[in-house]
Amino acid sequence: MSNTSGLALSDVRVLDLTRAVAGPTCTRLLVEMGAEVIKIEAMPDGDFSRGVSVFKNDRSLYFMQQNRGKQSLCVNLRDPRGMALLLELVPKVDVVVENFRPGVIDAMGLGYERLRELKPDIVLCSISSFGQTGPLSDKPGYDFIGQAYSGMTSMVGEYGERPGLIGAAVGDAGTGAHAALGVLAALRRRDRDGVGDHLDVAILDTYYSYHDANVHSVNGSGGALSPTRNGAHTPYLSPCGVFRASGGFIVIMAFMHHWPDLCRSMQRGDLISHADFCEEALRIKNRAALTTIIEAWLAEFPDVASAVQVMQAGDVPCAPVLTIEETLTDDHLRARGTVRTVDDPLHGKVDIPGNPIRWKDHPNNIPLSAPLLGQHNVEVLRDKLGKDAETIDALIEAGVLGQKNC
Amino acid sequence: MSNTSGLALSDVRVLDLTRAVAGPTCTRLLVEMGAEVIKIEAMPDGDFSRGVSVFKNDRSLYFMQQNRGKQSLCVNLRDPRGMALLLELVPKVDVVVENFRPGVIDAMGLGYERLRELKPDIVLCSISSFGQTGPLSDKPGYDFIGQAYSGMTSMVGEYGERPGLIGAAVGDAGTGAHAALGVLAALRRRDRDGVGDHLDVAILDTYYSYHDANVHSVNGSGGALSPTRNGAHTPYLSPCGVFRASGGFIVIMAFMHHWPDLCRSMQRGDLISHADFCEEALRIKNRAALTTIIEAWLAEFPDVASAVQVMQAGDVPCAPVLTIEETLTDDHLRARGTVRTVDDPLHGKVDIPGNPIRWKDHPNNIPLSAPLLGQHNVEVLRDKLGKDAETIDALIEAGVLGQKNC
Repeated sequence: MSNTSGLALSDVRVLDLTRAVAGPTCTRLLVEMGAEVIKIEAMPDGDFSRGVSVFKNDRSLYFMQQNRGKQSLCVNLRDPRGMALLLELVPKVDVVVENFRPGVIDAMGLGYERLRELKPDIVLCSISSFGQTGPLSDKPGYDFIGQAYSGMTSMVGEYGERPGLIGAAVGDAGTGAHAALGVLAALRRRDRDGVGDHLDVAILDTYYSYHDANVHSVNGSGGALSPTRNGAHTPYLSPCGVFRASGGFIVIMAFMHHWPDLCRSMQRGDLISHADFCEEALRIKNRAALTTIIEAWLAEFPDVASAVQVMQAGDVPCAPVLTIEETLTDDHLRARGTVRTVDDPLHGKVDIPGNPIRWKDHPNNIPLSAPLLGQHNVEVLRDKLGKDAETIDALIEAGVLGQKNC
Repeated sequence: MSNTSGLALSDVRVLDLTRAVAGPTCTRLLVEMGAEVIKIEAMPDGDFSRGVSVFKNDRSLYFMQQNRGKQSLCVNLRDPRGMALLLELVPKVDVVVENFRPGVIDAMGLGYERLRELKPDIVLCSISSFGQTGPLSDKPGYDFIGQAYSGMTSMVGEYGERPGLIGAAVGDAGTGAHAALGVLAALRRRDRDGVGDHLDVAILDTYYSYHDANVHSVNGSGGALSPTRNGAHTPYLSPCGVFRASGGFIVIMAFMHHWPDLCRSMQRGDLISHADFCEEALRIKNRAALTTIIEAWLAEFPDVASAVQVMQAGDVPCAPVLTIEETLTDDHLRARGTVRTVDDPLHGKVDIPGNPIRWKDHPNNIPLSAPLLGQHNVEVLRDKLGKDAETIDALIEAGVLGQKNC
């Protein structure tokens, strides 16, 4: 644990019953802002994300990335003495976060009503795919399941073709951020009014809230608009999309007031007032012809970077479509710490994403390590629950607590 | 304005200098939790999102959706008397949120140092595409620009083909949520330590943080893994992707421990231990053959819903790929308020996404209306700045304040 005094959440303690991605993202964000997070891991193997992704010395980098700075308490949850430890911890924390399937936490004896008996102003944050209510709430789900029900999957892919997936946990991670936001709001209310709350944050709802225009477009247009996937170009603006260039691809967003800047960058001032392209509606209608002109111009450059440089000099919103490898060495991403190198006790140095929230007068990217399984068993029982060494040894001996070097 | 007493942020007042999407999403989330948001709109037309999307009675539904519950103060920012009103408001608020291009707010005379002179514990939240620092910080950007630099665009599309776009403001909205989270953390620190802060939240950083596995996979594997787009299936799990069905598409995630459940749903218990499919690695290797089997089975159903029903009964994680229209009438999305109908003063009833954060003991989906341009000019100047009617009339007369019925 780093010294967190002065950090925004240094006075917040969280009991973290989550695993995999959406839940751990919520508590990862809280840790980065200084919260103390006690992660409960079920014996024998703990969070199942310890078993996925890329390994070195038995360390899953997937687990490492999502769980830096958390304390690991590895407990046999099928043993009543293990469950008793959890119940004992509840009055010592401000927040409980869980992402079991709805109903499971009640069955475990850790439902909201029970938690309130143990700590009247507890904040319980439940994260799930479909939410705690509604006909689908008991169905199994993951990011792509919530995404498909939200209509978001229908917005990815080529027009008229099979929809595709987004190759990252966009919904899981975004849901974790909304959950963390809900937790801080609930804590503010608790501090002021002395009441807790039970938050219900779902991947489905989060994805749905990302439809800035799609939802209202349908009945707002009386059914005339029917939003669907459109490949590499947005349907309602032009030029706006992904264009082929030498050795790669470039996103260009030169619609509306940006159009003349692109024309000037292309040294094609004649296009600004060209009869086929002078208005947004015309550029949309004549998108194919316009794409041909732009891609022919891009092909004159030796590479993506030189074309981007010319357009950026002309103030045209544009970007190379960087591969993941390219992001690791990009000047801007490195300078800003968007990509950061961390030193893991088991793995050594490795790159992971930086903290997405930056502060001017508050530490950024504090040094944190992901815990070994059960690394903080003794520390938590001694410091939080006041157990003596003999009691802790007896629990270890009885198989109520576990530990592994991974 | 609704009565917000008892809401989590009923004691928080925000000066909102944002427009378009990422910024207004931040303040939209704050409003939903009870904050009072004074939105500054520049004369003559205000937030440019008032001019986009679907209209009725001059009302942009795009503007409506992102700005419900905010107060609109429409000011001539090129008139020193207009700017003076903004400076007068700063000591009356807790938070200022802005999403100008970096440097603009300093040039306007509203930079962090100036704001601190006016209110020492002010929280300033700056939202941008690339962030406030780094070589690209002064470049123009939008969601898709940050997305391309983050490597996320390279993860969307068919393997080996041109990358595609996600048809919604996923990055804008997610960045707004991270900004709101940063604001609440900063307010907690302010309340405890008496200090403000300047937050720097970027679309690029937010997208990058969504790479749950892609970033560490590259150097964690010593360069052996090179994450890229993979169309409708995830590369490292199987079956896991989008499958063709009768009249539509279904996402099925029947990897690892879910595999036997899918086999039983298909009444193909023989596949569980089949030599080609009995292990995850084999199912990945033989993905094409497995997809053919699954899609042939799906084709036997009359429609998507009946196939989903059978798999859900067998506890297989799966989902129909709903179109946007289908989401509007889905039982679950309606029952949960994931889609909600609001009544806009100019437009009438229309569907928009529900608030992604739900509370058990705190009002959800509070009734809110988007403001007309300049609707709260008098109210804000009178109630927040103590101006008398004569002064306000003189400012209107002088063209320092504006109003429009849109």
